[in-house]
Amino acid sequence: MPIISPALLLLAAAQAPAADTGIPPGTAAVLDDPDTRWIQPDPEWTLYMDMAGMDEIEGGRVVIRLSKGIGRQNSENIKRLVRAGHFANGSIDRVQENYVVQWSGAANAPRGAAEGAVPGEFEAPRGEAGMLSPIPFSDAYAPQVGFLNGFPAAQDGNRTWLAHCYGALGVGRGDDPDGADGSELYVVIGQAPRHLDRNITLAGQVLSGMEYLTSLPRGTEALGFYREGAAKPRIANIRVAADVPATEREDIELMEMSGHTLAAWADARANRARDGWFNYSHGAIDLCNLPVPVRRSPREE
Amino acid sequence: MPIISPALLLLAAAQAPAADTGIPPGTAAVLDDPDTRWIQPDPEWTLYMDMAGMDEIEGGRVVIRLSKGIGRQNSENIKRLVRAGHFANGSIDRVQENYVVQWSGAANAPRGAAEGAVPGEFEAPRGEAGMLSPIPFSDAYAPQVGFLNGFPAAQDGNRTWLAHCYGALGVGRGDDPDGADGSELYVVIGQAPRHLDRNITLAGQVLSGMEYLTSLPRGTEALGFYREGAAKPRIANIRVAADVPATEREDIELMEMSGHTLAAWADARANRARDGWFNYSHGAIDLCNLPVPVRRSPREE
Repeated sequence: MPIISPALLLLAAAQAPAADTGIPPGTAAVLDDPDTRWIQPDPEWTLYMDMAGMDEIEGGRVVIRLSKGIGRQNSENIKRLVRAGHFANGSIDRVQENYVVQWSGAANAPRGAAEGAVPGEFEAPRGEAGMLSPIPFSDAYAPQVGFLNGFPAAQDGNRTWLAHCYGALGVGRGDDPDGADGSELYVVIGQAPRHLDRNITLAGQVLSGMEYLTSLPRGTEALGFYREGAAKPRIANIRVAADVPATEREDIELMEMSGHTLAAWADARANRARDGWFNYSHGAIDLCNLPVPVRRSPREE
Repeated sequence: MPIISPALLLLAAAQAPAADTGIPPGTAAVLDDPDTRWIQPDPEWTLYMDMAGMDEIEGGRVVIRLSKGIGRQNSENIKRLVRAGHFANGSIDRVQENYVVQWSGAANAPRGAAEGAVPGEFEAPRGEAGMLSPIPFSDAYAPQVGFLNGFPAAQDGNRTWLAHCYGALGVGRGDDPDGADGSELYVVIGQAPRHLDRNITLAGQVLSGMEYLTSLPRGTEALGFYREGAAKPRIANIRVAADVPATEREDIELMEMSGHTLAAWADARANRARDGWFNYSHGAIDLCNLPVPVRRSPREE
């Protein structure tokens, strides 16, 4: 008896559009709705991280969208490193179970015009970095959560910050909040470690290719660092998408996480019984359990 | 400049006990506090899932604690299958990125006295399965969350249910809520898919060895199933710990997630600035971001 469950029903559900039935749309209907809006990531603020592969571990491309709002100075410094070739032949240094994958460039890798220390951008005065598009659900960490320019984010009465959801790109730092040089980057690979919010700079979010990071062997030393002398997974290179010939760029787009599109998507994900299989809808969803859909850009026929 | 960050400070933090300083304890102090209570999992309700390894992928032991409260009938049926040898030479069938690992026994594996269909145990009338030990923080899905016999759980005015946190063991089902036969089991490997709560039976939680599941290659077919004919990761066997000679059992214990121990642990995890490195404490933590600590049982000296 082959049981396919618990099914992610994005692919499987066949829903009639709301206009036909009067029933609010399920997840598949929102994805298919021609009124749902999608945006193409700006190539100047998109990174291609190409994993080299190792033994039986498949390499492949991780596509990362950088933030040009909160975290902008750190994003810019990362781009300076990337453009200097800093991460060519770099390595994964740390894979900590249910936490982060962290990497760096090769020893003495060039730094080009990158700053040696960038001020921490853990949060911003509310409104300064744009308006949060809220979702109307409770959160343990903030009175209001939602999306800011497509990144999961939170705010209170005074401050707005990006949230450590699955796939978030962070800028490693030591004890100095303003001492990050952009050379130690990490991606969240487990349950959202939201306690890191407001404590470290987030500079972006993985759009695709998470599996090339999450399936890496866990490091066996403290904090998931690889053992001294162990073969580390290699990074072939990281490039800014704008520096790659247009014909070789990834042709993907992400859902616009604002306005009616966000409202419909959050509502559908909060009410999964519309999708079948599910018996019970919670009528709510956690910020980090509301994924930002990414798809291949459709072509005119 | 080797930057170790974002540091999980369980290991690194050196905190004086609260009694010495008047400052509430940080995470390391709670773990070290002789008043912190630990419990040994009941071998009759513990599974050892031994992964066989494959190519460069290391095998190892996944230790799973079964629920004898909510989910008890399903847990009992799983034990019947296990004791019939059902999962010997079984395989991982599905690894879906940021979702679940799912497995089954070999073709025509024996089922012993196992039932062919067990009623769904998605939730229980409040109080019937014991009292929830609450944590005082907001949640998108429930007015109250906490731990029930050591398992993350939630409740409203009428019902109590186990929560799909990282490492939760679920019992796959088809469309029939009461049709699960225990032969298709899954473990959560990504952001807590809490929308599955109240929709499928949870029967336990992984205590150790998650890395043997999370680092497996993702399946390339829909829902993360492995391609037809692809080499699947093998399960050497699953056994009930009570059936393993006592000298060969895993000598581990978990924190008692109730009473003063839970209160101190939740408070420390909600206020990480006590641990150093952190600048900001949220004063709150999400249910699924509050891990149940597991340690080797200390020995008398």
